[in-house]
Amino acid sequence: MTDTKADLELVTRADSDGVVTLTMNNPKRRNALSGAMMTALKNAFDKIATETSVRCVILAAEGPVFCAGHDLKEMSGITECDQHASLFNQCSNLMMTIVSLPQPVIARVRGMATAAGCQLVASCDLAVAASTAKFATPGVNIGLFCSTPMVALSRNIARKHAMRMLLTGDPINADTAFSMGLVSDVVEDGDLETHTDALAAGIAARSGMTVRLGKQAFYKQVEMPLTQAYSYASDVMTANMQKHDAREGIGAFVEKRHPEWRHE
Amino acid sequence: MTDTKADLELVTRADSDGVVTLTMNNPKRRNALSGAMMTALKNAFDKIATETSVRCVILAAEGPVFCAGHDLKEMSGITECDQHASLFNQCSNLMMTIVSLPQPVIARVRGMATAAGCQLVASCDLAVAASTAKFATPGVNIGLFCSTPMVALSRNIARKHAMRMLLTGDPINADTAFSMGLVSDVVEDGDLETHTDALAAGIAARSGMTVRLGKQAFYKQVEMPLTQAYSYASDVMTANMQKHDAREGIGAFVEKRHPEWRHE
Amino acid sequence: MTDTKADLELVTRADSDGVVTLTMNNPKRRNALSGAMMTALKNAFDKIATETSVRCVILAAEGPVFCAGHDLKEMSGITECDQHASLFNQCSNLMMTIVSLPQPVIARVRGMATAAGCQLVASCDLAVAASTAKFATPGVNIGLFCSTPMVALSRNIARKHAMRMLLTGDPINADTAFSMGLVSDVVEDGDLETHTDALAAGIAARSGMTVRLGKQAFYKQVEMPLTQAYSYASDVMTANMQKHDAREGIGAFVEKRHPEWRHE
Repeated sequence: MTDTKADLELVTRADSDGVVTLTMNNPKRRNALSGAMMTALKNAFDKIATETSVRCVILAAEGPVFCAGHDLKEMSGITECDQHASLFNQCSNLMMTIVSLPQPVIARVRGMATAAGCQLVASCDLAVAASTAKFATPGVNIGLFCSTPMVALSRNIARKHAMRMLLTGDPINADTAFSMGLVSDVVEDGDLETHTDALAAGIAARSGMTVRLGKQAFYKQVEMPLTQAYSYASDVMTANMQKHDAREGIGAFVEKRHPEWRHE
Repeated sequence: MTDTKADLELVTRADSDGVVTLTMNNPKRRNALSGAMMTALKNAFDKIATETSVRCVILAAEGPVFCAGHDLKEMSGITECDQHASLFNQCSNLMMTIVSLPQPVIARVRGMATAAGCQLVASCDLAVAASTAKFATPGVNIGLFCSTPMVALSRNIARKHAMRMLLTGDPINADTAFSMGLVSDVVEDGDLETHTDALAAGIAARSGMTVRLGKQAFYKQVEMPLTQAYSYASDVMTANMQKHDAREGIGAFVEKRHPEWRHE
Repeated sequence: MTDTKADLELVTRADSDGVVTLTMNNPKRRNALSGAMMTALKNAFDKIATETSVRCVILAAEGPVFCAGHDLKEMSGITECDQHASLFNQCSNLMMTIVSLPQPVIARVRGMATAAGCQLVASCDLAVAASTAKFATPGVNIGLFCSTPMVALSRNIARKHAMRMLLTGDPINADTAFSMGLVSDVVEDGDLETHTDALAAGIAARSGMTVRLGKQAFYKQVEMPLTQAYSYASDVMTANMQKHDAREGIGAFVEKRHPEWRHE
């Protein structure tokens, strides 16, 4: 759980007013998800999970490629089945860590996001794409179907669109990714950082408690049948309503003044 | 179950050839879903559920705002947790009443539909939006995440698009709402009533029995695994086929004449 | 399971380099899914399922109509409930056969695909539409709601878009079908065969083992909760990694050479 020097090199962290920007920092290896990179990301997220002062996370990348997926050189050096299983489980755990992180995570994507790199984008709560960004799940080209990436992908976009990406490996561009539902925002390349920062700052300006409650409830209710989902969501909303920030927010709205959040 | 005078004032009802138009009628309060408004709507829907002569329902609103969601003044006056729970449960029950109503419900949306007002739209079977209509789930702005609205929203549109609305509160316009799946039709503002009436009249001109069977089956099968869904839907279709209106409809089609429905 | 002469007439088969093109061949009856047509299709798919040399299937149609759904003349001649049940079960089984077929199936659609014909398209893994193709579920017009087609339709497109098609019977065009998720590709009418052949050839050029593993895993994981889906997909990916073709594919990628698949 502690940062090692290697972690700090592979993933850099910048803090600003409740927003943490994590940057994958191995551009020479196209930010591949090597075991070390995944460990560095997991450690960084696990730390953030305990920091209530952090209210939004940006997941960014250094260099012209967002993330190329698994490190194939590393993978081709592995011969034991147990080691492969361990690698894929580590990757799945990383993705689920993003989903279960209390704070929202915004992927900030420039360049290609492929295979497990595309899965990273799909696993974030929001994703801002530069207009030249591209997304692909090309495992089929190397005989290794993108089976874990498709778990996230098929929960973001329509089945036929997902199957098209998985069976052909063809990339889709940012506008298509938006209309299909893989990203939430597309902006001109030059606006990527500014837009993402503003989006994150807006979320961080809201009550952290409210956002945490909401994110957690989203992924829980979406897997429930309708009646159960409503029963659960009504309980969540009632609990939310008992908190200071909801009373403060509603009071401020009725009195037409600015709310003062406690975030707790 | 009986209409009270207050109900009649808050929700008006107009009948025309098997179509009922229910109109939320509190424009000064932006048609907020106060306890009284929700009771009036629930009573109106419960009555319609028993009327086999009604074959389609339009849910409309008086004034420039479709529906602003919960009545925040009313809510800020409540201090007991039990009362909040009661209010959110009442709201969830209203939404599920629309889903389980035998007849299809078409939301006819002019202006803003926000929070539980957006949820109303999401809960209807179809929704016609005026081109200037807007949709938002801005609870995050007042410290109260739109947790029950997201149950309906996340069953209408892609996850990232839903999360974008929920985490930012930003409104989307009618064309975006159509492409995302939140509404089924977008028309020029001046055509809103005419188009919605024609859509409803078209549904009311079909066999009421067939439409009821189909609507009910839709929401049941959509929550089932594929094999079970097919088994269930095959049974529904077989039962449908034993009815007069299916035999009449197929016979009329083969004989190239107009069918005479019994609707039963 | 053996081809009869009638089967060969109703469904033709052409083989080319690992791709099978099955063509529904009853244009005078608008390729209606009569009992005989469904039997012919089922037999053809069942045979393909056992042929590991087949790596992709194209489902095409002769004539100006892709498929008009059930054969209403045949259906109107049936009076026994058991016979209706048998017909709808046969149809559902055919659709599930496509989903569970080891090889991907691409619908190649020119003209109208209606009712169970639209369901055929929805049930395929991919679908290429000519730009003038149209899709509809008009059972409501004849008193027989498209209840089994909606099982496939509602797993392809957003709920309100599906309900719009089901409640009105109105057709949607190819571009709309693409943006909603019902088809994966839209091309000019004159390019339909060339484009579909190229798409299929591309899939057939990949490792058949990899594609089979991936297709099967897709439909299994999509019905699981997230945690279970990741656990399952990680196992699939680990098993995939133990195969010759994955090692060969990764090796070829690292060594910048062309892979030699064994497909097994």
